[in-house]
Formats: sequence, structure tokens, C-alpha cells
Amino acid sequence: MARERQTLSRRSLLGGAAGAVTLTGLAAGTASAATRSADVAIVGGGLAGLTAARDLVAGGASVVVLEARDRVGGRVVNLKLANGGVTEGGGEFIGPTQNRIKALADSLGVATFTTYNTGNNLLYKDGKKTPYATDGLLGSVPPIDVAGLANAAAVQAELDGMAKQVPVDAPWTAAKAEEWDRQTFETWLRANAVIPSAKFLLDVACTSIFSAEPRELSLLYVLFYIAAAGDESHPGTLERLTDTAGGAQESRFVGGSQQVPIKLAATLGDRVVLNAPVRSIAKSGSQYVVTADGLTVNARRVVVAVPPPLAARITYDPLLPAARDQLGQRLPMGSIGKAIAIYDTPFWRADGLNGQVVSDSGTVRSTFDNSPPDASYGALMGFIEADQMRALDGASADQVRAAVLKDYATYFGDKAKSPTSFLLQRWDNEGFSRGGPVAYAPPGVLTQYGAALRAPVEGIHWAGTETSTYWTGYMDGAVRSGERVAKEVLPTL
Amino acid sequence: MARERQTLSRRSLLGGAAGAVTLTGLAAGTASAATRSADVAIVGGGLAGLTAARDLVAGGASVVVLEARDRVGGRVVNLKLANGGVTEGGGEFIGPTQNRIKALADSLGVATFTTYNTGNNLLYKDGKKTPYATDGLLGSVPPIDVAGLANAAAVQAELDGMAKQVPVDAPWTAAKAEEWDRQTFETWLRANAVIPSAKFLLDVACTSIFSAEPRELSLLYVLFYIAAAGDESHPGTLERLTDTAGGAQESRFVGGSQQVPIKLAATLGDRVVLNAPVRSIAKSGSQYVVTADGLTVNARRVVVAVPPPLAARITYDPLLPAARDQLGQRLPMGSIGKAIAIYDTPFWRADGLNGQVVSDSGTVRSTFDNSPPDASYGALMGFIEADQMRALDGASADQVRAAVLKDYATYFGDKAKSPTSFLLQRWDNEGFSRGGPVAYAPPGVLTQYGAALRAPVEGIHWAGTETSTYWTGYMDGAVRSGERVAKEVLPTL
Repeated sequence: MARERQTLSRRSLLGGAAGAVTLTGLAAGTASAATRSADVAIVGGGLAGLTAARDLVAGGASVVVLEARDRVGGRVVNLKLANGGVTEGGGEFIGPTQNRIKALADSLGVATFTTYNTGNNLLYKDGKKTPYATDGLLGSVPPIDVAGLANAAAVQAELDGMAKQVPVDAPWTAAKAEEWDRQTFETWLRANAVIPSAKFLLDVACTSIFSAEPRELSLLYVLFYIAAAGDESHPGTLERLTDTAGGAQESRFVGGSQQVPIKLAATLGDRVVLNAPVRSIAKSGSQYVVTADGLTVNARRVVVAVPPPLAARITYDPLLPAARDQLGQRLPMGSIGKAIAIYDTPFWRADGLNGQVVSDSGTVRSTFDNSPPDASYGALMGFIEADQMRALDGASADQVRAAVLKDYATYFGDKAKSPTSFLLQRWDNEGFSRGGPVAYAPPGVLTQYGAALRAPVEGIHWAGTETSTYWTGYMDGAVRSGERVAKEVLPTL
Repeated sequence: MARERQTLSRRSLLGGAAGAVTLTGLAAGTASAATRSADVAIVGGGLAGLTAARDLVAGGASVVVLEARDRVGGRVVNLKLANGGVTEGGGEFIGPTQNRIKALADSLGVATFTTYNTGNNLLYKDGKKTPYATDGLLGSVPPIDVAGLANAAAVQAELDGMAKQVPVDAPWTAAKAEEWDRQTFETWLRANAVIPSAKFLLDVACTSIFSAEPRELSLLYVLFYIAAAGDESHPGTLERLTDTAGGAQESRFVGGSQQVPIKLAATLGDRVVLNAPVRSIAKSGSQYVVTADGLTVNARRVVVAVPPPLAARITYDPLLPAARDQLGQRLPMGSIGKAIAIYDTPFWRADGLNGQVVSDSGTVRSTFDNSPPDASYGALMGFIEADQMRALDGASADQVRAAVLKDYATYFGDKAKSPTSFLLQRWDNEGFSRGGPVAYAPPGVLTQYGAALRAPVEGIHWAGTETSTYWTGYMDGAVRSGERVAKEVLPTL
């Protein structure tokens, strides 16, 4: 499936010949190399772009959403199973304080259900498996040495405390912004998570959250991300990022998370155009000419709702200001894949396991039970993160499958070796993502370039989860950014 | 002048309508939207691309060089003065062990002359000017406290020693590569350059060399860059990067450094096509279709000889491997401008000054005497680096001029306030550079992605100074990379 999608996308990369194809069943046909006009051209049909479109239309504006892929949703995608079920290749979870994605889903009639979380977690460390109980809202206590637990708890409290000093709308104004932005998260962890088992827990947390290693991240960026894991009434905490119950992995969407962008796009009808990767944005008098493969849109304003490193690949005329361009050179995507193995039953549940692993080795070091609410079949979902993903980016799908199933068997026994089907979503290899889940900031970027993240460039406005003040990197952040950018653009029309 | 060039480049950014224009006086006319065929299409007409073209042609291959600008030379450009003279807006110096640019210049009849270096350097620190003698090959000893000098010398020795452990062709294989790549240069400096005056000297060295702040750079990358400041017989040293006499700033080119690419391009005739920014590279059977504005080239091989962040903006079909794409997301350009003030005479020489300043404040913190060999007029050249450049990227040319001349007057007296002309080259604002002098590596990049720097992707090969093992970031590295890539491609034809 994933492969099929990619082939289609590649075909559209070839450009002119193919022509833009509109959303089947929703959109009126659009002729090849056609021209349309709208108040606002929106680049990217993920949650950010679609939410912006919804609010702009509600405000009386006309819009065209140009989506590069042959589907909406961006980093949110459903994968159909041979057994008729659905699982998710991208963002899938929703948790407390993620109010804007919740409100959007509610408005579209997409319900949520609780992530399977009954039974024990599993720690795999130094070649040994240890089940351990999870502890609801207060987080779980992994079976590591007492000194390590104490150290990890102290580090967590320290990070939360520092994060409280970081304004989510302007992290670069924190009193210690310079100090925190001049070092890697790894440097700070080595000075603070001094017990090896504590360092291990923080490392796993880091790669699980960012799909990047601690050495790649600015400490200030990590603190901002923690601060952003909340809302106006609830300061962000590290635990809200890492937890299942009470945290960002608490719930899932009935029918799969892509139901949200799919249903949202349906309300927009032929305003959404697929297979239309945008190549250039040129100002012409008071108008912008937005050129996609097969379709040109003339618009008074442009909303760019794709990740910064991809936005940087569009040709702008006039050129973007240096600060914005250099920002686009400095926010790389993390490296991530998702592997979902399907079984006749969620057999690990009978062993008292909730399907959630934390591991110090292997290709997959973090897993979830992705089975449907009725448990009519079993699904083990594993993240392949950062160094582990990069090591396999060039490998064949079969090689990745073998590496993943070896890990699943280590964690859950030999039954895991024989799934009825196996799905793999490799975001690094997707031309219109080239990594995931989010573009992160290395040291020195937020303090020098952070202000360029949301600053409009004349009539060009910026959306996408990276521009959100709360829940950046999550579906909620994407929705928030779409709502914010619509509020920004409407008064200028 | 710079402005004029940029306007032309922008016009060509608009694309199709303008059509590709060949090098006036050299090249036969090329029709708009024309097609050409060659064994090798070369993207970028800087020293790397032109050198590759020279060697490929010498090896019997046919080539077309596609240059985005209306001139050759890339980050090397002559600026013409109203008085008939020439100065340089980009790379201008040449020094010992830079053998390949020297051989190229010799072969083209471009002579060198010694950078003006007679008289005292000037230290401006804590609001006070102190002239000090330079000390030839052993480097200069700035008038700072003895403890600071001792500390700076120890740090320099330590860096050189560590650099000796970094293989220039594979820095990621150094025994301590992981340790050095997980921290910023700033983190290491703070632990080692503990005397404030020593830290100041190292900071100035860093921004002068990289046009980036120590907090932005991986320690491993800095060590690699030092190791690369030499040749097969002379291990690189920090001093060779920073020194005038005996170092990378030792000499200049008669007629301006751009004489080298201009004369080299002249030997290639209509193989070089200007105003032809490449937008896509698509494989079609055993051929590559390289599409530039106004010209399409069919070729068996492609050499991409532009900086990695700009190479990442080309559309590739099939997609590049993830490692190569994510490398392109992770190597940003430094932030740099050059300001050259022209005077009737090099008046500072009468005060016993060589025109070289090291300063702890102001917009320009490092200057050179850029006067011609016959001193028929005076030229003060100042670098605007990193944080200082970013602070002024959005400022008007007049504002930058005022800031620069204020600094020049502080350093050299009131006469500096009234130049006969003033030239400003703002690399961050150039669409086909978007920064300079070189794309640098933040923490974690070399160890995970370094191997993708030069690895060919089927028939696509990579050149440019960033890919060089010696003198990366310099003209010499560009020439070396062109020679290497030609050797790589020829046997495959």
C-alpha cells in the first residue's frame, strides 16, 4: 500500500504530463495545466492546511488547497488491512489538553477510544525481559535500580521546571535561552542523568518523542517541546509527552486518525486538489502565482502548510528574507518508520502484557498494542526511530520486516514471528515528508531564527505543526496552526 | 553592482519566459527551452563544476555546465570599482598547501600577490585599541593577559592534536567521533577556553573561519575542518586557517579571484550555459534529463556541484536515498557578508597599521587591507559574520553601510568615514547561495550522514567544496572536488 502510494507520488513528480487530479468523489475535474483563482492558496493538505481552509471559508474567503500527494492528511495516514481493518502509518494518538484536534474530530463525528493499556509494560534491558505495572496518571515506574529511578525522577522534575521558564510563543525570550540553546540535549543529559539506567530511560524518551537522538537536539528546543505539551491552562510536562494513560498516547480515533483529514477535506469539496506539488510562489502585482504540477492558482494570500525543510524547496520570487530561508536550512526532519504486524489475536494480552515495550536494543525499541477496540484481531505497532531508522533507510522492505519481527519475537515470544500481514510506513523515504514526525531544532537555531517561524512574508503566511505554540509536532499542533493562520489572514483580505 | 546581479538572477528565477542565455562572447546562442545532449551534465558553474568540466573534457567526455547565475564563479566574484579597479565579494585568498587552486591559477596565467601584511595588527577590545606586531609563520600574539594567552595556546594545541586523530576522508571513523560529534564547539570551548580573553580569541577565530557561532557547530566538524587545512604532506592546523602570512590569507589573485573561474570557463566555450538554474534531475532509461529554466540537457551522468542545502532544493526522480536527502536538510550555510570601502589611499598604513583588526564588538570584527598591489588606492575589507550578519540581513544597504563605516572609523579614525565608494556583498540574500562561505555541520550530522556527502547515487555524483577532504570551505577544496569527481565519473562513461 505504502509502496503503491509512493509510486503514484513519484509519477506526479515527473510533472506537467500527468496533470493535477482532484479528489475523487469530491472534486470536479480540473484540466491539465489549468488556472484557478482564489483569495487564498494553501500549500499542503494536511491537518494544518485543511483546518486553515475550513476557517478561511467560514470567514467568507475562497480557497484552493494544493496537496502534493494523491491523498490528504500529510503525516496522518490510514493503512488498509487485508482483513478489512484499518491501522495507522503516521500520527495516531490523542491525549489530554489536545483540545483542538479533539474539537475538530468531534465536529466531524470521528470518535475516539482508549489505547489498550491493561496489563504490564515490558522492559527489555541487558538481554532481560521484566514486566512492570503501569501507574496511571502518575506514570509508570520501570524496574531499574533505585539510584537510577531517583536520578530519572530528578532529571524529569528539573526538565519540567526549566520548561516552565520557556514561553511557548517565544522560547528565545527565556531568561536562559542563550545558555540552553548553545548545548545539545545530550550534553545536558550527561551532566544530569549521571546514573546509566536513568540516562537510558531519558534516551528512550527522547528518541520516542523526537525520532532524533539527544545529540541532535538543542536543549532549548527540548524544553520548548515539553512546555508545548499542554494548553493555556495546563503547563506542559515531560510526562504528558511520554505517558499512555493521562498522556499523549491516551486515545486513538475510531476508523483511524486519517478519518479526520479525510472528512474535513470532504467538507471542502473541490477546493482540495490532489497530485499538485507546488514548485513556485511568485508575486505578480498584488497577486501571488502559485504554480503546482498541472495547476496554477492566482491568489491574494498564500498559506504554506508543509514542514519548514520542504517549504524551503519551493522557489520563491521575490526571494524569501534570509532569516526565513536560513531557518528552512536549519530545521531537519526526524528519522522515523512505523511497523505494524497483524495477528489473528492480540495474544500478548493473555500473558498479562499491554503490548508496550521499552527496550535498550534492536530495531524497534518502543511498541504499542494497535489492535482495534473490539480486539477482533491483534496489531503490534513498533516505532523505528532515529539511528535505528537511518541504519535501515537503504534496506529492503523484507530486511526491515525481518529485523522488526525478530524484535517482536524477543519481546512477545515466537508467535510474533508469524503475522498474517505486515505493514511498513517509511517516512524518510516519502518524497513529500522525507522524515518525521516533526522538524526539530539543533543548537543555536531557536535563538537566532525562531522569530521567523511564524512571521508572515508580505502575503505569505506559515502554518504546520512546527509553527504551533502548543503541541508542536502533534496533530493538535497542526490544527492549532491552521486556526491561528486563518485568524491571521482573514483580516488582511 | 551586487544589486544589479541579483536583479538579473531574480529575473531568471521567474523561469521559462526569459530563456537560458549563454556566456556572452564565449558561447553560441541557445534557443529558449532548447535541448542539448552530453555525456555529463554539470550543475553549477563555480570552481568545482568548472574544474570537473575541464577534466572530463580532457578525458574525452562531452559536458554541459548549467549555471544558475548570469556569471560563473559561484561564491567567487569580482566587484568592479568606479576607479577601474577590482575587488572581491567572495573567496579571495590563497595560502600554503592550497596546491590545487594554485596549479589551476598557474595553468590559466592568473598570478598571485602577497596580502598586505606590513605593520601592526589592531586589537579592539573593551572599547580600547591596541596595536600589536604580527609574527610571521609562528602567528601573532595579541596583547591580552598572559593567562589568556597561555590558555589560548593550550586550546589551540589541543585542537590541533585532536584534529590529527580525524581522518579527512572519513571524520566519522575517528576513535572519538561519537564523543566529539555529540557536543557543540561552544560546549567544548567553555570547558577548555576557561580564561575569558582566550574564549574571546577562539570565538573570533570561529566566526572568522565558519561564519557561524561556536554554538552552531559540531566539535567533530570543527576538528575535521582543522584537519582539512593542509594537504597530503602537511597535517592541518588551526593556525593555517587563521594566519595571513603562512596561512590561508597569505596571498591574493592579480585581477581578482574570479579571474580563475572566468578564464577557466573561457576554455570551455559554449559548454557553459548561464541563467540556467536547474529545477529537476530525472532518470529516464539509462539517461538523465536535467531540466533548467530554458534548457534541458540529456546526459548519461550528472555532477551536482552546488552546496548541499541548495542541491536539496532540486527535484529528483527517482527520489534520492533518505541518507542523502536528510544530509541536505542538515548542512546549513553560514551567514556572511563582505563590505569593502574604497579610499584615495590606504591611509592606515601611514599609522603603521596593516589593516587587520580583531574586535570584540561592532558589525565588522575582522578586517583586511584589500588595496591593489600598487596601492594606487586604498581598500578596507570587513567581514560581517554569523550573529552580526543575521542582525542586518533585513536592513537596507544604507543601514549596513552606516554600521560598517562606524566600525571602520572606530578602528582607523575619522578618515574611514568617507570612502570614495562602498561595496557590499550579502551572501545570505543571494538566491543561489543563501549564505556562506560554506555549509557546516551541527552536532550529530557527520557521524550519521557524513558517508552520504560524496557517495554517488547511481549516475549522480557530488562535487563542491563541502565534499573535499582538504581545504573544504575554500577555493582549493572546490578545485579538489572537481578533480576528484571527474576521476570518479570518467571510468563509468
